[in-house]
Amino acid sequence: MNKKGILIVVSGFSGAGKGTLIKELLRRYPKKYALSVSATTRKPREGEQEGREYFFKTQEEFEKMIAKEELIEYAGYVNHYYGTPRAYVEQKLEEGKDVILEIEIQGAMHVREKFPDAVLLFVTPPTASELQRRLVDRGTETPEVIASRLQRAAEEAEGMAQYDYLVVNDQLEACVEEMHHILQGEHRKSFRNHRFMEKVKEELQQLKGE
Amino acid sequence: MNKKGILIVVSGFSGAGKGTLIKELLRRYPKKYALSVSATTRKPREGEQEGREYFFKTQEEFEKMIAKEELIEYAGYVNHYYGTPRAYVEQKLEEGKDVILEIEIQGAMHVREKFPDAVLLFVTPPTASELQRRLVDRGTETPEVIASRLQRAAEEAEGMAQYDYLVVNDQLEACVEEMHHILQGEHRKSFRNHRFMEKVKEELQQLKGE
Repeated sequence: MNKKGILIVVSGFSGAGKGTLIKELLRRYPKKYALSVSATTRKPREGEQEGREYFFKTQEEFEKMIAKEELIEYAGYVNHYYGTPRAYVEQKLEEGKDVILEIEIQGAMHVREKFPDAVLLFVTPPTASELQRRLVDRGTETPEVIASRLQRAAEEAEGMAQYDYLVVNDQLEACVEEMHHILQGEHRKSFRNHRFMEKVKEELQQLKGE
Repeated sequence: MNKKGILIVVSGFSGAGKGTLIKELLRRYPKKYALSVSATTRKPREGEQEGREYFFKTQEEFEKMIAKEELIEYAGYVNHYYGTPRAYVEQKLEEGKDVILEIEIQGAMHVREKFPDAVLLFVTPPTASELQRRLVDRGTETPEVIASRLQRAAEEAEGMAQYDYLVVNDQLEACVEEMHHILQGEHRKSFRNHRFMEKVKEELQQLKGE
């Protein structure tokens, strides 16, 4: 069956728990999944390691990567570039790992254009009021920040239907397994298994000739 | 999330074990799945019950069902009709059960046309020689029958790519669970969850207005 990895995009509301979900998925199935490491022009913060949190680039280096199409997608935020280097992703896919990109909807749509076989997941809590409750329960956000997060969520919600799957993060344990099952199921799609089908066909032709 | 059942078509090589697979799936998850009961014009055999093995019909009754479009698909084999009654399938789907049709490729393609949201699974052993081994191991088939089964499998193999998923039946236990995961994953497809998405959007609009 399909040995090559699948490119996986994970988006979702801020507060939906997608970071925790991805971290737990990688912890449980380290041989199956890899997390894409982004490139950025911002300076490393204390404790951040080259190639672990980010690939740190100068603006000139980053713009060269853009020009040479070495990035799957990129965007500028507050004077800095962030992007997904193609080489790392393709290397992991070749190794047979599913590579997870945690990006926002604009990036997700670019990935789909360039990689039509990518699988797009949108992480959501079971209800919007649960999202609000989680943002409030953090206890670190001002009412203004919570309001702006909900405003942003309302915008992001308009894009949900563009994703292949909705992952409802109610109980973390169950949700990690569900995500794993969705992704393993994707490996069984017939369009991802042309080589397997050709082999079965050839072998049947030989057997019936015997 | 998606409460309505999904129409599932299961096809596969004779000897691939799809009957056992479906039976085991129904036994483990009786609340989630239902098996479609076919209508036929052949006479009941001993022990067969109306509505359990088949819905038994006269030729006239069956042809009326065809005329009134009460069958999802039908075919004639050796002087008898066999078909899938729409009413039973739709009732089970409304009850929230995924309904399994065990049919061949021509029927499968008709189902896809009429029900574009149906999920089509093709059951195959890991290799063609394993298929041959299983047919031989039954010990009940003549070499001629085995040869004709392999001939037929070679024809059926041409249609594999038309299915959504390939289910590789190597170990029964693992395969039943894999099939279950594929089908549960399908319930998470965003296009099956319009109502959920609308609800989240509406709720977010209300919350940000508060």
